[in-house]
Amino acid sequence: MRATVMYGAGDVRTENVPDPKVQASTDAVVRVLQSCICGSDLWPYGSMPAAEHGRRIGHEFLGVVDDLGADVSGLRRGDLVVAPFMWADNTCDYCSQGLQTSCRHGGQWGVNGVDGGQGEAVRVPQAQGTLVKLPVGEDSALLPSLLTLSDVLCTGHHCAATAGVNPRTTVTVIGDGAVGLSAVLAAKRLGAERILLMGRHRARTDLGREFGATDVIAERGEEGIERVRELTGGAGTHTVMECVGLKPALATAFAVVRDGGFVSRVGAPQYAEVPADFGVFMRNITLTGGVASARAYIEELLPDVLDGTIEPGKVFDRTVSLDQVSDGYRAMADREALKVLVRS
Amino acid sequence: MRATVMYGAGDVRTENVPDPKVQASTDAVVRVLQSCICGSDLWPYGSMPAAEHGRRIGHEFLGVVDDLGADVSGLRRGDLVVAPFMWADNTCDYCSQGLQTSCRHGGQWGVNGVDGGQGEAVRVPQAQGTLVKLPVGEDSALLPSLLTLSDVLCTGHHCAATAGVNPRTTVTVIGDGAVGLSAVLAAKRLGAERILLMGRHRARTDLGREFGATDVIAERGEEGIERVRELTGGAGTHTVMECVGLKPALATAFAVVRDGGFVSRVGAPQYAEVPADFGVFMRNITLTGGVASARAYIEELLPDVLDGTIEPGKVFDRTVSLDQVSDGYRAMADREALKVLVRS
Repeated sequence: MRATVMYGAGDVRTENVPDPKVQASTDAVVRVLQSCICGSDLWPYGSMPAAEHGRRIGHEFLGVVDDLGADVSGLRRGDLVVAPFMWADNTCDYCSQGLQTSCRHGGQWGVNGVDGGQGEAVRVPQAQGTLVKLPVGEDSALLPSLLTLSDVLCTGHHCAATAGVNPRTTVTVIGDGAVGLSAVLAAKRLGAERILLMGRHRARTDLGREFGATDVIAERGEEGIERVRELTGGAGTHTVMECVGLKPALATAFAVVRDGGFVSRVGAPQYAEVPADFGVFMRNITLTGGVASARAYIEELLPDVLDGTIEPGKVFDRTVSLDQVSDGYRAMADREALKVLVRS
Repeated sequence: MRATVMYGAGDVRTENVPDPKVQASTDAVVRVLQSCICGSDLWPYGSMPAAEHGRRIGHEFLGVVDDLGADVSGLRRGDLVVAPFMWADNTCDYCSQGLQTSCRHGGQWGVNGVDGGQGEAVRVPQAQGTLVKLPVGEDSALLPSLLTLSDVLCTGHHCAATAGVNPRTTVTVIGDGAVGLSAVLAAKRLGAERILLMGRHRARTDLGREFGATDVIAERGEEGIERVRELTGGAGTHTVMECVGLKPALATAFAVVRDGGFVSRVGAPQYAEVPADFGVFMRNITLTGGVASARAYIEELLPDVLDGTIEPGKVFDRTVSLDQVSDGYRAMADREALKVLVRS
């Protein structure tokens, strides 16, 4: 089959790789209909040392069950399914508390002999726990929105949920990438009435407004901080959702959160230390968030996607074929595209 | 009157200072019966540059109302009262949400013309909001335990409460100082059944066991981390209460907390950055805690002190007179004493 392989910074190729097959009785093989490129894929795309043997990549996909191991129940060949961005048994103690990202028998896509999501097919370990059946057909116009259940919508929701967003909280979202916009959508869905979006790409912040942002702050650094303070009577917002992953964004988060408030981070940290010093301590700021356990949220979010209450698939502003995936990476890295959908 | 003045590292003196008087209509003057030395007082005691004009110190005290401004209601001369370690109006938006440490009209003891607590008397700004009446007499044997409501007990409780300790959570407490032991007491009071105390001073950890610790880990660093893991099936505890304030203690906290768990810090941070890196992010650890809003907790904790359910005053293992306060600092700095009570 054809699949995406990354060989180093800026070097993504679509290649022939072995067809996936059921190996363990708990596996399934899924024929991929749609996958996509994640902001986190851009970190290795920007920095991976050149390698002779590339690595498989992609962790967001939906498709059709093509084969099943003997111990997978609840699924049939032909079922349309979505996969969360980490696979898990969905039964261990961590999974039972909604922390499938720490599953005792789970793991990541694209490593240790597991396929990446950006390909024609994927062998899915722990298929019964991992895959969620979608009650639509292969031709459904909802597929792009349903694809966001694999990561970006759930990541936005995790950010809002761990921050405790509710109708009484004011919110600042830092970052107008697909995760930031999904965080806006999630905050709005949880009832937040005041959502400040910090971002400066007009097309993106316009979608942010459509998703529920009430104010857009295009200024950055000290100017941006001042602007949030102006808009909140000097105090900042109850919650800040940090959707970038860079240290300056996190520093801004601490600067614009209200005393006693929550900073939730879902941008994969490109830093080793958090600037949560004595001043942050004296202001009783909680730092929460982390990698989103998408599997824990899919059933909760699915109905709102199916009935059109939310349209998270609007974050996809470009579609490429699997053979064009290299250009998809380039477009996202160059900020030509917000988020790229890949048709297999 | 006589009061404590710090002139620099290792240089604490008891001196004559002006008698406090009501200055604003919202002030009271309290004649101090008992105050005490805080672990946080030891930071300047260890590092304050020598100064010609010393600074008043002490932020934990109880005593008798001696005078009242015209706008203070609910209190009378002769009332026995305890003061939280920051003063506050108890009516602003922050106070209303239980964050009196961020009060819009509040402040700290010992600065900006406000007396320190380690003296014969204190002018109390925002007296109506700050002081809490205690239903006991000046000769009550409960006074030392009631004195802990001003800081150390409430700080331990804040640590446990922000970490979400309940009967289903396992707990590690890092630090066997008075705050750590109070955190043990608070966790036990909130129903925790498994409380691991990391500390290596036998007399202190013995009191920790009396307060509710089920296991004591005397090892430090990697050995201590391994020991906690052994005791918890490899996973660590749901919550970790960091009661030291040094970076290695916080690093230990992240190492012994269970995935998805809470690290609550109440040790005043002697560091600028928190080692909450990508690994911590992937494990979904929340960092909470901060300076304790003691005022928010006093009414909740008071009944348990009055009826003897908890005896937090056991943290005091030495009593000095006001004129001996310098020796009290030395004894605490040398770890001869756990926590020193000062009789005025």
